[in-house]
Amino acid sequence: MAEDTRLRYIVIAVASLIIGACIGLAAAPLPAAPGGDTDRETLFQVSTIDALLQGVYDGSMTFDELAKHGDLGIGCGDRLDGELVGVDGEWYLVRTDGRAYPVAGNATTPFAAATFFDPDMTIAIEEPMNLTALEGYLETELPSKNLFYAIRMDGTFSRVVARSVPVQEKPYPRLADVVANQTVFTFENVTGTAVGFWTPALAEGVNVPGYHLHFITGDRAAGGHLLDMTLTEGTVQLGTTTNFTMRLPVGGDFWMVDLSDDLERVEK
Amino acid sequence: MAEDTRLRYIVIAVASLIIGACIGLAAAPLPAAPGGDTDRETLFQVSTIDALLQGVYDGSMTFDELAKHGDLGIGCGDRLDGELVGVDGEWYLVRTDGRAYPVAGNATTPFAAATFFDPDMTIAIEEPMNLTALEGYLETELPSKNLFYAIRMDGTFSRVVARSVPVQEKPYPRLADVVANQTVFTFENVTGTAVGFWTPALAEGVNVPGYHLHFITGDRAAGGHLLDMTLTEGTVQLGTTTNFTMRLPVGGDFWMVDLSDDLERVEK
Repeated sequence: MAEDTRLRYIVIAVASLIIGACIGLAAAPLPAAPGGDTDRETLFQVSTIDALLQGVYDGSMTFDELAKHGDLGIGCGDRLDGELVGVDGEWYLVRTDGRAYPVAGNATTPFAAATFFDPDMTIAIEEPMNLTALEGYLETELPSKNLFYAIRMDGTFSRVVARSVPVQEKPYPRLADVVANQTVFTFENVTGTAVGFWTPALAEGVNVPGYHLHFITGDRAAGGHLLDMTLTEGTVQLGTTTNFTMRLPVGGDFWMVDLSDDLERVEK
Repeated sequence: MAEDTRLRYIVIAVASLIIGACIGLAAAPLPAAPGGDTDRETLFQVSTIDALLQGVYDGSMTFDELAKHGDLGIGCGDRLDGELVGVDGEWYLVRTDGRAYPVAGNATTPFAAATFFDPDMTIAIEEPMNLTALEGYLETELPSKNLFYAIRMDGTFSRVVARSVPVQEKPYPRLADVVANQTVFTFENVTGTAVGFWTPALAEGVNVPGYHLHFITGDRAAGGHLLDMTLTEGTVQLGTTTNFTMRLPVGGDFWMVDLSDDLERVEK
């Protein structure tokens, strides 16, 4: 066999091996995507709101891990260092300067809720509505008061009032005492997005019953925990969520905190 | 080029393609197995206890589906037709005749909880303990009162008191009224297994805080919802469970039932 013929054999064999390997990879069953059908219809939560109210502020899950369970969400940073806003898979912490900082993937959260946002209802807002009116209207549209709903509001806001709280040090005070020192920001005539959840009463203690929304400006530069707003024009989208998954901390303050009482609830 | 050289090129190319495809398939990431580590540490629940208390008795998940989420569990049958006992991946419904019937995979449950049982603590019982004493003792051993625990007790029981409730028809009465007509069975000097969960107070409304156990005899022939017992000799195993997943019904009575009040709770 001539030398160049042998070389051709080898080149053809190697090329075919590579092509074959690619075909094999393409034909292999895909790993269950984070975001299989059930996952996409799941509200994923880290810890409980009552633990946060009681001062359990040490982060127990990284933002990289949280992002595997949703592309929209809210929560807070480790030691309450910032209000968490997740939108379109981008995650920010709004600190007491009112600015939104992209999260570090290896930073952690003590409390967060996330979902892959698949809206089931879209409502166009064509006349200005304040938060109370809008929340009241949306509640009449919910197909059931016993499910979870992911919420996303995009548009122009004539006014937004939002807050953040300062990072805490041990021994941690209760959240009610932290919120007494919150910093409040007012935005006027901004475009932006409010994201969050409506939680059914059945989950009281686990999350905040009713609405819990965080805001971020259109340029993703500022925002906070939403206290009040007037949406001038835009859209409100709701995603019905029938599955709920909660990851409780595998150690730390959470294990020993007293969660048996009816706690003073300050998130609203 | 000679005909046989060309043929050899083709043979080598095809063989290499096949080998390459096999390498590609072998190198592809495996699909996530049902029952990965996280799944095994998850208490999986169908609907909520408060919905059951309010009379939401239509099944919303098949036992085949439930069994994908655990090998140990408790709950009830469609229309309250039997007390559910799942042990070692075998699932039974105990009806008002006191007998345990293997479930049909396509039958449904309106309320159930299940997990893959991986015990973290094993306690040997060498002197007779009644249910109150045993439950009190176990609570002192729980590493945290804010987590879920799967429980399995195997041994010889000098006495077991268990109950079942009759299958219901619409319009469904509340569970308190159904339980008023429960059938109670007493077993003496039997071997058997009690399975169930300890639920933290944070999940009140979602499940029964504290203990909820169902019993089945060693021959898997009889049992019921555990009301009282004395464990003469045996073992008690506890599995700490930090993840919780809940599937709410995607329709039916659940969507409209009022779950906003503090309900009279009769499961204990």
